[in-house]
Amino acid sequence: MSIHAPQGTALTSASDARAYDLDRAHVFHSWSAQGSLKPLVIAGGQGSRVWDDSGHTYLDFSSQLVNTNIGHQHPRVVEAIKKQAETLTTIAPTTANLARGEAAERITDIAPVGFNKVFFTNAGADAVENAIRMARIHTGRDKVLSTYRSYHGNTGAAIVATGDWRRLPNEYARGHVHFFGPYLYRSEFWATTPEQEAERALQHLRRVVESEGPSSIAAILLETIPGTAGIMIPPPGYLPGVRALADEFGIMLILDEVMAGFGRTGEWLALDAYDVVPDLITFAKGVNSGYVPAGGVIISDPVAATFDDQVFPGGLTYSGHPLAMASIVATIEAMNEEGIVDNAATIGTDHIAPGLASLAEKHDVIGEVRGTGVFWALELVADRETREPLPAATMGRIKCDLIARNLIPFTMENRIHVVPPCVVTPDEVAEAISIYDDVLGSL
Amino acid sequence: MSIHAPQGTALTSASDARAYDLDRAHVFHSWSAQGSLKPLVIAGGQGSRVWDDSGHTYLDFSSQLVNTNIGHQHPRVVEAIKKQAETLTTIAPTTANLARGEAAERITDIAPVGFNKVFFTNAGADAVENAIRMARIHTGRDKVLSTYRSYHGNTGAAIVATGDWRRLPNEYARGHVHFFGPYLYRSEFWATTPEQEAERALQHLRRVVESEGPSSIAAILLETIPGTAGIMIPPPGYLPGVRALADEFGIMLILDEVMAGFGRTGEWLALDAYDVVPDLITFAKGVNSGYVPAGGVIISDPVAATFDDQVFPGGLTYSGHPLAMASIVATIEAMNEEGIVDNAATIGTDHIAPGLASLAEKHDVIGEVRGTGVFWALELVADRETREPLPAATMGRIKCDLIARNLIPFTMENRIHVVPPCVVTPDEVAEAISIYDDVLGSL
Repeated sequence: MSIHAPQGTALTSASDARAYDLDRAHVFHSWSAQGSLKPLVIAGGQGSRVWDDSGHTYLDFSSQLVNTNIGHQHPRVVEAIKKQAETLTTIAPTTANLARGEAAERITDIAPVGFNKVFFTNAGADAVENAIRMARIHTGRDKVLSTYRSYHGNTGAAIVATGDWRRLPNEYARGHVHFFGPYLYRSEFWATTPEQEAERALQHLRRVVESEGPSSIAAILLETIPGTAGIMIPPPGYLPGVRALADEFGIMLILDEVMAGFGRTGEWLALDAYDVVPDLITFAKGVNSGYVPAGGVIISDPVAATFDDQVFPGGLTYSGHPLAMASIVATIEAMNEEGIVDNAATIGTDHIAPGLASLAEKHDVIGEVRGTGVFWALELVADRETREPLPAATMGRIKCDLIARNLIPFTMENRIHVVPPCVVTPDEVAEAISIYDDVLGSL
Repeated sequence: MSIHAPQGTALTSASDARAYDLDRAHVFHSWSAQGSLKPLVIAGGQGSRVWDDSGHTYLDFSSQLVNTNIGHQHPRVVEAIKKQAETLTTIAPTTANLARGEAAERITDIAPVGFNKVFFTNAGADAVENAIRMARIHTGRDKVLSTYRSYHGNTGAAIVATGDWRRLPNEYARGHVHFFGPYLYRSEFWATTPEQEAERALQHLRRVVESEGPSSIAAILLETIPGTAGIMIPPPGYLPGVRALADEFGIMLILDEVMAGFGRTGEWLALDAYDVVPDLITFAKGVNSGYVPAGGVIISDPVAATFDDQVFPGGLTYSGHPLAMASIVATIEAMNEEGIVDNAATIGTDHIAPGLASLAEKHDVIGEVRGTGVFWALELVADRETREPLPAATMGRIKCDLIARNLIPFTMENRIHVVPPCVVTPDEVAEAISIYDDVLGSL
């Protein structure tokens, strides 16, 4: 996950040199061996671009960690943060505060009918932790089912709910079971059509539920569209099928919209495109583009009612933090009034989809293109027939080459995720496609 | 933990009424049954006071959740947030950023010699999660020992490390063992002097370590001064004794400074007053008074070196968030230049200590006064001889009466924690002492 500065990125400004030196001396980085890091210095940004102070500007097709949905430094959100900072930055969650109430109202307005309460957290991981807690207490059951291809966050329960390698050194939480979700390109079910993949994935999930014992299962936890794991668009019928299965056995359905929510898919929530209503929705990232750390759980009425008379055994100092809340209100208002979610949808359909399709026509290394809105994956393969993933060394080279051409990519395993901000323009998409084209052509 | 508005707190301003109504309609609160909450509306603050828009002002002797060490709305920190908001609110932790490097440098300057790296998190809970993770991987061992009288946060591992009742509905993490720490007023060791309490608490801990198997123990996790659990000042020799025990068996010592750190005790870190150097230090709250959600782990060189070549399997989107980092830099600079830590020490010695002693002389309900800096507890008892805790109903009445007299208290079980901001003035302390006096006198 590290972003190395390309060879020869001279830091001619004193502030950049100082940022780099201080980083290497004192900053311990996420998900990395620390010794060999050469992080890219970033000092500022606007829209789909970021820059250092030494004259380098980068086109951000990562949205950082797929969070700056509204783009960098949206003036309206910046202004709201400044205004709230002057009024009241922080107040305990035991109080009532206008910014907090306004943010909760905006979010419940976006949520499906029957979701009227929001529990605010600091980010996605603790959103997932608390959604799991609510589901367990509401059902009186223990187990949480989630998929092997998933990421749900880095804290105790969230990292064990996670399916990918990051779970393995961190398996200290009990009550988690993993299953396989639909992923036709690399089907776990020997399926050849989307319909078959959906049907067999549901049959597999039913067998896992039956085998684990339905009455022990509190929740099925799914990213509506698995994000870091590969942006696998659920095949038609899958999510409604999971909902029906959950209903059959009194299991809560938690949809994790931390990465997919708030504009990323060209919808307000990714679940809006599917015929599914969960019991709990987790969010973070796009809700305020991460301008201030924030996340939360949107709670359906029956689950909320469980805690009317019973103490909810969870909480945190910065739940409903006014500065974060003000940034949420401004983000949702700006996205509404400036048609930013619609832009994500249109850009996806009219620019990214055809652009990536044209790359796939030219470059055999692209095994599959999939996505929606500003949420796309290029699956890179050594061989289109066998679908053997492109080796890590080649992926490393691609990443370096993209950065050297001033594009910040999001790469994961053998994939490039094409995930610009929702405010990205057709020209910026064309520029990125041309850079991808160059780099893939030079392999 | 809920703060109910006193009867008759009329919300005459439209914004307060709206804040209250939106809260009740849409905000799900921490650690509470939701149905009967009547939260106090807070719209603004300055120094040791907060207010609503309807004309009510409160003296904040809670520092909210013991986090606003620098007081509310310190102009220098507000200015730094506004400035950083204009430059760059957020950037991925994979990059280098000047605000992040500066914050890490300021924090390592405060830490003991041999602590040169900081891993930033969003708050205290994920700081504890990651410190535990580091200790486990560094030692190759599983178990974490912590005390029954402790609070370490609300996520998967942190809540199971926690000793108090909040752990009980949340026990889904393995590898946690609890023991008793020193607390002479309610000794678990039949001790009658501080020396005996320290000696016996160490003997008890040794027996737990031996019985659990020293080679299975990754870390002993302690709040330097247990906070929410009762502000129990460790008796002389205890912390150095724990350090020696940890060294004897190759166990990591994690000191949790989330509540006690950054000025609260009249020292930069609470551990500065004791002859102890841990392996890992967790922080949050006071580091930036919670103006922007932030926390982290300060890492000793040997633990940091473990991850030079080995991937650290932890991370989060907002690790080293620029807006939070800028607020940390400004907070530490302001605390330094304005002598705010010294103020906490002096206020504690010259004003809070004698003020609370005078209350204890007048009111038999006070069983013990203990603390340091702006970190004090009044232990309230039904009977000084038996030390029977004051019943919950009476504590509830005290809390309501304090709020009705415009003081926001921090109460927990049978205690009032006297925990104003570090910037509190002698006059404000006198005002608070007089309010406590009134309320305790009316029992």
